[in-house]
Amino acid sequence: MTLHTGRHTLQIPGPTNVPDRVLRAIDMPVLDHRGPEFAVLGHEVLADIKRIFRTKQPVIIYPSSGTGAWEAAIVNTLSPGDKVLTAETGQFATLWLAMAKKFNLDVDVLPTDWRRGAPLDLIEERLKADREHKIKAVMIVHNETSTSCVTHPLEVRKILDRNKHPALLLVDTISGLGAMEYEHDAWGIDVSISGSQKGMMLPAGLGFNAVSEKALAASKANTSTRYYWDWHQVIANNAQGSFPYTPATNLLYGLKVAIAMMEEEGLENVWARHKRHGAATRAAVKEWGLELVCQDPHAYSPALTAVMLPDGYDSDAFRKVVLDNFDMSLGAGLNKIKGKAFRIGHLGHQNDLMLMGALAGIEMSLDLAEVPHRAGGVAAAMEVLKGRETASMLKAVVA
Amino acid sequence: MTLHTGRHTLQIPGPTNVPDRVLRAIDMPVLDHRGPEFAVLGHEVLADIKRIFRTKQPVIIYPSSGTGAWEAAIVNTLSPGDKVLTAETGQFATLWLAMAKKFNLDVDVLPTDWRRGAPLDLIEERLKADREHKIKAVMIVHNETSTSCVTHPLEVRKILDRNKHPALLLVDTISGLGAMEYEHDAWGIDVSISGSQKGMMLPAGLGFNAVSEKALAASKANTSTRYYWDWHQVIANNAQGSFPYTPATNLLYGLKVAIAMMEEEGLENVWARHKRHGAATRAAVKEWGLELVCQDPHAYSPALTAVMLPDGYDSDAFRKVVLDNFDMSLGAGLNKIKGKAFRIGHLGHQNDLMLMGALAGIEMSLDLAEVPHRAGGVAAAMEVLKGRETASMLKAVVA
Amino acid sequence: MTLHTGRHTLQIPGPTNVPDRVLRAIDMPVLDHRGPEFAVLGHEVLADIKRIFRTKQPVIIYPSSGTGAWEAAIVNTLSPGDKVLTAETGQFATLWLAMAKKFNLDVDVLPTDWRRGAPLDLIEERLKADREHKIKAVMIVHNETSTSCVTHPLEVRKILDRNKHPALLLVDTISGLGAMEYEHDAWGIDVSISGSQKGMMLPAGLGFNAVSEKALAASKANTSTRYYWDWHQVIANNAQGSFPYTPATNLLYGLKVAIAMMEEEGLENVWARHKRHGAATRAAVKEWGLELVCQDPHAYSPALTAVMLPDGYDSDAFRKVVLDNFDMSLGAGLNKIKGKAFRIGHLGHQNDLMLMGALAGIEMSLDLAEVPHRAGGVAAAMEVLKGRETASMLKAVVA
Amino acid sequence: MTLHTGRHTLQIPGPTNVPDRVLRAIDMPVLDHRGPEFAVLGHEVLADIKRIFRTKQPVIIYPSSGTGAWEAAIVNTLSPGDKVLTAETGQFATLWLAMAKKFNLDVDVLPTDWRRGAPLDLIEERLKADREHKIKAVMIVHNETSTSCVTHPLEVRKILDRNKHPALLLVDTISGLGAMEYEHDAWGIDVSISGSQKGMMLPAGLGFNAVSEKALAASKANTSTRYYWDWHQVIANNAQGSFPYTPATNLLYGLKVAIAMMEEEGLENVWARHKRHGAATRAAVKEWGLELVCQDPHAYSPALTAVMLPDGYDSDAFRKVVLDNFDMSLGAGLNKIKGKAFRIGHLGHQNDLMLMGALAGIEMSLDLAEVPHRAGGVAAAMEVLKGRETASMLKAVVA
Repeated sequence: MTLHTGRHTLQIPGPTNVPDRVLRAIDMPVLDHRGPEFAVLGHEVLADIKRIFRTKQPVIIYPSSGTGAWEAAIVNTLSPGDKVLTAETGQFATLWLAMAKKFNLDVDVLPTDWRRGAPLDLIEERLKADREHKIKAVMIVHNETSTSCVTHPLEVRKILDRNKHPALLLVDTISGLGAMEYEHDAWGIDVSISGSQKGMMLPAGLGFNAVSEKALAASKANTSTRYYWDWHQVIANNAQGSFPYTPATNLLYGLKVAIAMMEEEGLENVWARHKRHGAATRAAVKEWGLELVCQDPHAYSPALTAVMLPDGYDSDAFRKVVLDNFDMSLGAGLNKIKGKAFRIGHLGHQNDLMLMGALAGIEMSLDLAEVPHRAGGVAAAMEVLKGRETASMLKAVVA
Repeated sequence: MTLHTGRHTLQIPGPTNVPDRVLRAIDMPVLDHRGPEFAVLGHEVLADIKRIFRTKQPVIIYPSSGTGAWEAAIVNTLSPGDKVLTAETGQFATLWLAMAKKFNLDVDVLPTDWRRGAPLDLIEERLKADREHKIKAVMIVHNETSTSCVTHPLEVRKILDRNKHPALLLVDTISGLGAMEYEHDAWGIDVSISGSQKGMMLPAGLGFNAVSEKALAASKANTSTRYYWDWHQVIANNAQGSFPYTPATNLLYGLKVAIAMMEEEGLENVWARHKRHGAATRAAVKEWGLELVCQDPHAYSPALTAVMLPDGYDSDAFRKVVLDNFDMSLGAGLNKIKGKAFRIGHLGHQNDLMLMGALAGIEMSLDLAEVPHRAGGVAAAMEVLKGRETASMLKAVVA
Repeated sequence: MTLHTGRHTLQIPGPTNVPDRVLRAIDMPVLDHRGPEFAVLGHEVLADIKRIFRTKQPVIIYPSSGTGAWEAAIVNTLSPGDKVLTAETGQFATLWLAMAKKFNLDVDVLPTDWRRGAPLDLIEERLKADREHKIKAVMIVHNETSTSCVTHPLEVRKILDRNKHPALLLVDTISGLGAMEYEHDAWGIDVSISGSQKGMMLPAGLGFNAVSEKALAASKANTSTRYYWDWHQVIANNAQGSFPYTPATNLLYGLKVAIAMMEEEGLENVWARHKRHGAATRAAVKEWGLELVCQDPHAYSPALTAVMLPDGYDSDAFRKVVLDNFDMSLGAGLNKIKGKAFRIGHLGHQNDLMLMGALAGIEMSLDLAEVPHRAGGVAAAMEVLKGRETASMLKAVVA
Repeated sequence: MTLHTGRHTLQIPGPTNVPDRVLRAIDMPVLDHRGPEFAVLGHEVLADIKRIFRTKQPVIIYPSSGTGAWEAAIVNTLSPGDKVLTAETGQFATLWLAMAKKFNLDVDVLPTDWRRGAPLDLIEERLKADREHKIKAVMIVHNETSTSCVTHPLEVRKILDRNKHPALLLVDTISGLGAMEYEHDAWGIDVSISGSQKGMMLPAGLGFNAVSEKALAASKANTSTRYYWDWHQVIANNAQGSFPYTPATNLLYGLKVAIAMMEEEGLENVWARHKRHGAATRAAVKEWGLELVCQDPHAYSPALTAVMLPDGYDSDAFRKVVLDNFDMSLGAGLNKIKGKAFRIGHLGHQNDLMLMGALAGIEMSLDLAEVPHRAGGVAAAMEVLKGRETASMLKAVVA
């Protein structure tokens, strides 16, 4: 067992800290998933989760990780040979499109340097050129967790609309949901994909698909083989508050409480809090003289901040200094930026002082690890956080 | 919220009661699934679960329900058009073969009356006739949770062996594992399928595949599309104690404790306990003058007991009397025996007095619901339970 | 660690089973006991606990066991040399009067055979004879936990009233509160003494004193040395929702939930449930042919049932058979009936099937231990429990 | 319910943060406090707690707050009229000596300005002058939680010894134990008084008395009235691993785990960690240009730091700014320094980043509240914490 003198500082971009109220809910005894008491819970969480996705449409809840929810989106809406348009904005986009290829989709990948969102101009170019509407879906990662760059789904929707292109819009908002503005219905998303372990403040184990009417229609016409992920049998069972196979009941207990907490704070306040924490973190990084992975301010993520180390400094060695000295976990650089970047998660169950503890741990470790930097990042972050809005925001109290 | 004055009696055949020690483990904070502390846990549970399946081979752990573990077994080893032999021994066999059909397998179904195990003679007949070895797999449900009839996997293995048939042996032991003798290696099982929420005493959310070398070889050759369920990327990651996508960490905490508890009791003692409880329950049913669903004593299940009500009595109405009067959940009759039978789970975290409470609740409810029966079932069960072996068994104390 | 295959059956007359909801509340993080969030909690539980005692008067909550609450009652209201009248109705009365002697009270003890309530006729005789009102207090144990005999406080109050005797009425309702009818105000009790670990369904650690105006006046006049137990500094602090010294915050979290559960069931329903369980248990004992410790039906306890073993049979050896074979704890015979009697608790978080499990364990153990008895106790208890009122009672559902 | 977005920062000097492992232990079901399983626990915790006090002598564990443990020390060793020598070093000394007066002791109080430890020169003077040995006890507060000034018990012991004075040495180490060096036996303490809710990392609810042979002898000779607090009946019961009245079982579960955690870290490492945190906190205060309450460096506390605000600034208003803006609780100034000082707890389950979060919250609040100060306190604290010893200390890993 590792020695923890005080709480471990979990500052990875997911799984995130689970609130005590949520953990205690998960800790309750299992109940009969076919009985009337479960049905009440089932109806509640199925209604609750819609409010988080901002949709009136069904949200399918799987006992799975987020990867399963990706797979569900693909096998329900697309068939082998279907053409899809996507952008390689980072490691998670890369994995998702690798999955699409595994399912024999014809994947048109728009490359990027992993330091910005999806290239909207190229997306528009491709869609415009696709007069025959061979592109069946556009697949977008909302918040690319490997780079901390956001692609704004509404901007993609607008491109589709102004080009009158009928392709489905599939959005991975695994680390976006609950951490930044998201509007499944208003933004015209066809499939929103998410999971429990990021902004939703739960342990991993639930995957989500929010689905538009158009996506449902597409799935009915789609002949891809599928069973576990099939939306329709889940939706059919959900009408009775139940699930076609044994649900992860204890996580559903937690989901109910997590959503209650988000709504006590107010979903817009949750988003605003993440924005402030993103701004404070970037202020620290700037003061340290380090470079952000994300080079487009329009794409800065409120959920996490990926940071480059200077050439010649290994980010995994740095993370080890942080872990060994201050019992804090940071996210690693992945794939193209492995060893070059580290990631600071600031999503989910977070507040100003948790973030300040984390930033202090990074500033001290930069020194201990002898990474060239300026002191003062912590002070800069404080300047952001003590802005007047802080006071009013945190004063909110629920009855 | 339902009113519970005392603990709800959860006597369904899964999900089963989760021990307090396991719930408290699940309630611990999430940790970095890419860090060194998780790796220790990962290595431990991956080693632990092998001992429960009695195998030296890999066991793949999915964030999924048992249904997902069924799908994993199929998509890893079989391709569209492959012929499989199976027996419709009950509702779960029916669902599994429906899944096989969805994946375009050529399913040869041996029907039964749902009141016994798989017809071994017909299985042998089919395998013997299959000179060209077109049958790629035999799919068997070890403990059919809808009927409480067991098909003994070793007997199927012997048929395959004496007919020198190379078909893979796929066994659903979702409600068998941890409740009755099981030997993945010694019985020559190719894929053992299970889940967390039955004999393993955990909430739902983990699916298991234990895989033979032959199954692994078959999966390598198999070109079926798959990603989430793909064994090889999981096994590759497991070498570092990690998983290819975010694991259900908190359930893994629980898995470690659940297996520790099973081993403190001794796996053979766990099996023996379930056997005694099966015998006591059947003694009660016999004394009540009710009929067991399972008509073959060789197939009696140690994990649960399904009971027919007399003609004209609705088993769902009866279960409602039980729930309303005694806050106990029993399993429903499913499909063919819907409304005709109810099921008493006695698997997982159970002991004599929990079972006696349940049987007393049933006996009182038979009276309240005016179901024709003889009193005395509870007394008959006590006769079984107070046998001398009781004493020695429960005296075991660990250091 | 002891091996528990399933839940331990805790059937002692306290500490009793703590509901999962209460345990989870206790498991929440500590908060600042001088901050505004605690003050809300403090005001709530101080108001809640009054409803359980049925009083408008202050209830003082101590971080202590029930023994501490006894001491508080004595040192606040009585001075060395004060005469008190009490009855030795069992072991807890004996301990309490021993404490009174330690504090140099002049204790007039009415002896009993420990098989009935306090001798009301003798109490009346003594009070009538005490023309000079030298008796400052009558000390009564409401539910004598060692014998399962009840002394009804209202009957003592009536004696005091009809004799116009000004003595204070001090009532130990440690195992009565929450398990049987109790009316601090309506019955004219001066000090009601209780604790958290019995009918209140909490772990041990809170002691209670509900105090009449007359008792408060007496305490103001009383010069006994005291500090920790002093009512007035507690009451003064309670006005702000706080306590003069660090409260047992986590137990207060639990207290709030426990009272919520009692009120969801309805306090009268709680009392009725205990009565039914007492009746069912006594029916079993009668059928076994064993003797109740309590020989006066008017004094039968709804909270527990103490049972004599036949001469020559050791009740501690019997309890060991129960524990070793069925993992159930029963209460021991204490003091005068040590080795002769055992006690079955049926108070707190209990329901019919928990009780039936316990009674089945006793019936089997009587056989295993070769105690002369008739079978059929379990069946007799079922006859009581399946009475029509069962159905309606348990059907109650809260929103 | 108060809104917490992320964990509340509990930085009061007790009750302190309870580690998750400890809370989960407390959350386990109650067991029979007279059964063999409890006896194992009882023997264990009674042995464990001795190692924390560094004693071979009995430690008495009460279900009480620390105030109860004070009272126990007094009523066991002292009689009305006995002369005791004490110093009014702060609010808790004041309360304790008020208690002593309530118990009619003849209290000789050495006054201080509340900004240093006890006046050792005056103590020596008084003891030297007391030729007839009328002083029966010297009462000392080890770590005065209201002022963050330490009085070193060993220095008092040396005074007693060199003056050959037989007075008992009674030490309140309620907020010292587990936070700074303490040696009951080696320092010749007669009664060490402590509680669960400070350095011991538990909720409030347990009081401790560690007692020397001399104290035990004194208590045998002492005729003061007492029952609940009487050492001898507790010690007698402890021989069987049990307690004379119902113990706070769930807190004992927690005590076992808390001590295990302290010993995994190493008690000396625990002390060293507190020292570092004290030094870092004082460095911040100095840089802010604020004044420490404690004016004697020899008396600086490793457990908490009390800080004066400049004249004209209300410390309670400041604490409200901190709470409203940053969801952090700080300790109030008490009594003489009410409204003038605030207190930063850094004891118990703490680590560098928790402390840094707290100090950042204070620095930001000083600005928001417009308290005259220099920025840079946070930076100064980081300088202390990133000292080389940090690395080696936190690298320690247990098996």
